[in-house]
Amino acid sequence: MTTTSPKGFRAAGVAAGLKASGGPDVAVVLNDGPRFDAAGVFTGNRVQAAPVVWSREVLRHGQVRAVVLNSGGANACTGPAGFQDTHATAEHAAAAMGIGAADVAVCSTGLIGERLPMPQLLPGVTSALNKADPGGGAAAAEAIMTTDTRPKTVTVTDASGFTVGGMAKGAGMLAPGLATMLVVLTTDAVVDASTLDSVVRAACRVTFDRLDSDGCMSTNDTVLLLASGASGVAPDRDTLGEAVTGACEDLARQLQADAEGSTKDIAIAVVNAASEDDAVEVGRAVARSNLVKTAFFGNDPNWGRILSAIGTTSAAFEPDAIDVSINGVPICVGGAAGADRSTVDLSGRAVDVTIDLHAGGERATIRTNDLSLAYVHENSAYST
Amino acid sequence: MTTTSPKGFRAAGVAAGLKASGGPDVAVVLNDGPRFDAAGVFTGNRVQAAPVVWSREVLRHGQVRAVVLNSGGANACTGPAGFQDTHATAEHAAAAMGIGAADVAVCSTGLIGERLPMPQLLPGVTSALNKADPGGGAAAAEAIMTTDTRPKTVTVTDASGFTVGGMAKGAGMLAPGLATMLVVLTTDAVVDASTLDSVVRAACRVTFDRLDSDGCMSTNDTVLLLASGASGVAPDRDTLGEAVTGACEDLARQLQADAEGSTKDIAIAVVNAASEDDAVEVGRAVARSNLVKTAFFGNDPNWGRILSAIGTTSAAFEPDAIDVSINGVPICVGGAAGADRSTVDLSGRAVDVTIDLHAGGERATIRTNDLSLAYVHENSAYST
Repeated sequence: MTTTSPKGFRAAGVAAGLKASGGPDVAVVLNDGPRFDAAGVFTGNRVQAAPVVWSREVLRHGQVRAVVLNSGGANACTGPAGFQDTHATAEHAAAAMGIGAADVAVCSTGLIGERLPMPQLLPGVTSALNKADPGGGAAAAEAIMTTDTRPKTVTVTDASGFTVGGMAKGAGMLAPGLATMLVVLTTDAVVDASTLDSVVRAACRVTFDRLDSDGCMSTNDTVLLLASGASGVAPDRDTLGEAVTGACEDLARQLQADAEGSTKDIAIAVVNAASEDDAVEVGRAVARSNLVKTAFFGNDPNWGRILSAIGTTSAAFEPDAIDVSINGVPICVGGAAGADRSTVDLSGRAVDVTIDLHAGGERATIRTNDLSLAYVHENSAYST
Repeated sequence: MTTTSPKGFRAAGVAAGLKASGGPDVAVVLNDGPRFDAAGVFTGNRVQAAPVVWSREVLRHGQVRAVVLNSGGANACTGPAGFQDTHATAEHAAAAMGIGAADVAVCSTGLIGERLPMPQLLPGVTSALNKADPGGGAAAAEAIMTTDTRPKTVTVTDASGFTVGGMAKGAGMLAPGLATMLVVLTTDAVVDASTLDSVVRAACRVTFDRLDSDGCMSTNDTVLLLASGASGVAPDRDTLGEAVTGACEDLARQLQADAEGSTKDIAIAVVNAASEDDAVEVGRAVARSNLVKTAFFGNDPNWGRILSAIGTTSAAFEPDAIDVSINGVPICVGGAAGADRSTVDLSGRAVDVTIDLHAGGERATIRTNDLSLAYVHENSAYST
């Protein structure tokens, strides 16, 4: 039920000694073909980790035969030496596989600013390559975890006979453009790189890009989509897009559910906006308000903080026309108090906020989490 | 040492029953003249509390004789009825003083979305007006506190013979445009309203607007500057500006030091930026990163999170040219690891971060706080 669910892929995860815990920390996902088309989406952060710089170049020619991933170190802000480490990793895997390094994408995740321990990493890559098999997807998904409490995998099978599989890691720094996350998606559909590129971009735009757990944008975010063509099925763009978007949406929900220290999964639906951009802007402003997020942690349906966050945006609306409902209760009507706040049930993990701007017909949903004591605890102790 | 330090002002603070605690919650600051010039700066939030809408209109004619302030309720998101409450408050004070309501500014602070209890408020205003005297500034400063742990006041005396006094409240939602704060500044200088306006705007721009405690923008922020002319001294614009900016800077530092749940006062100096706007943008991005803020709460000099936040901006810089020092230690040099992180002493409350963009000659300092367990605790329990 992961990257090795589609035909034509092998994977593995091993413990190479990068993590102090001794847990698995190096993974590979290998495409055995017959086709090697690939596409990728990378962080919008201008401070980009070495593996992002490398893999972006690899993806330019639209072919990937192997992805090497490590947890236990982000290899970000490591200068030219860090880039050489990534290059050496790709060369090492390529040599072992008898392919060119330009067909090897690299992903890293972990603490920013420290060099990777190459004497541990390279033997780990060798070991993972040796172990890679069609049942190795679960082990790969486990090896890319950092503060994740559980691996995240997905499989979507289309009736026409192709499959999309995937794995993700990410638990903090979840924000548009993208989350602190690594995602590898695989499919056995027959599809060219340019179609893959448009499909994966469209899928990210409405899934990972609308997940905004803590407002922070990472240096390492990478989403890769590899196609082996091994099913022999060549779906049309919409059919493939639906399957890939479905897989991304599923993984995004898993990321949200495992966000660091979170006690709530909050969906902020902004409806009747003048434009989709307006809806996204309003949703993000609310999702990023620490006062809104702490209120939900305290089971407090504090709609005043929601209106205060909406007011910071440039979206089209009249303040006295805004309605807000929380878990179905119309707690704010026409920009003022509506139903009694005591009637809102916030005891569960799911929180549905609907903001009606009464300014048009567009909508978007942004997903976020609450800001909890555990989030602060975890993130104040992470690197020490 | 407060709003009544300059000649020509009286003030008072009383308990009217708005606060459940029974503490003081209604204040007045009265200008006895001979002049009544005034200026104000208000929140940039598009969702504006009724008293902001009212006071903005009052300030249009550049004259204020009385300011009525209450804690225990923000009177924001209260619809037309809430605006009528503000109007009635101004009329009530004006009638008691024998002046026009158009000379009475009103400020409110507290929970958003609930109507003010007018049967308590109006007698409180009467009582405060009756008690107002030239020694009442301290009581007024106490009556406007919400989650503040101490009143905030300031006095700046210029050698030429005029004085600037002030009081502030604000402990959360501190963000540009402005903080969740009410500030009343007074001076006995002889100065026209248009000069006051330019002086108070210039002062806010480099003080309150650069304090970004939790990234949230309030619906009620108000800074008023009232001039009585009672000293007979007519300073030039620069001399007055220096005194007012000094008073604002002092109050801003008091707001930062009392920010909800904070354990650190963090100054982020961005130097060698291509423009002041770039410096401000970078400083704010770092100040708003929850991962940076939680790291400082944990005494962790996590410069990687700082670079990651810088990378989200559109400021001019090369990622591999950025230097970051924390409390004097050059922990990041040329975008990569510099001095050992264990050499940074974060045991005190003051944290000085200097970010050198090597992109020009401009600079700005943004002040913020850490994100602590106490912040989450306080803000998850505030309204319930």
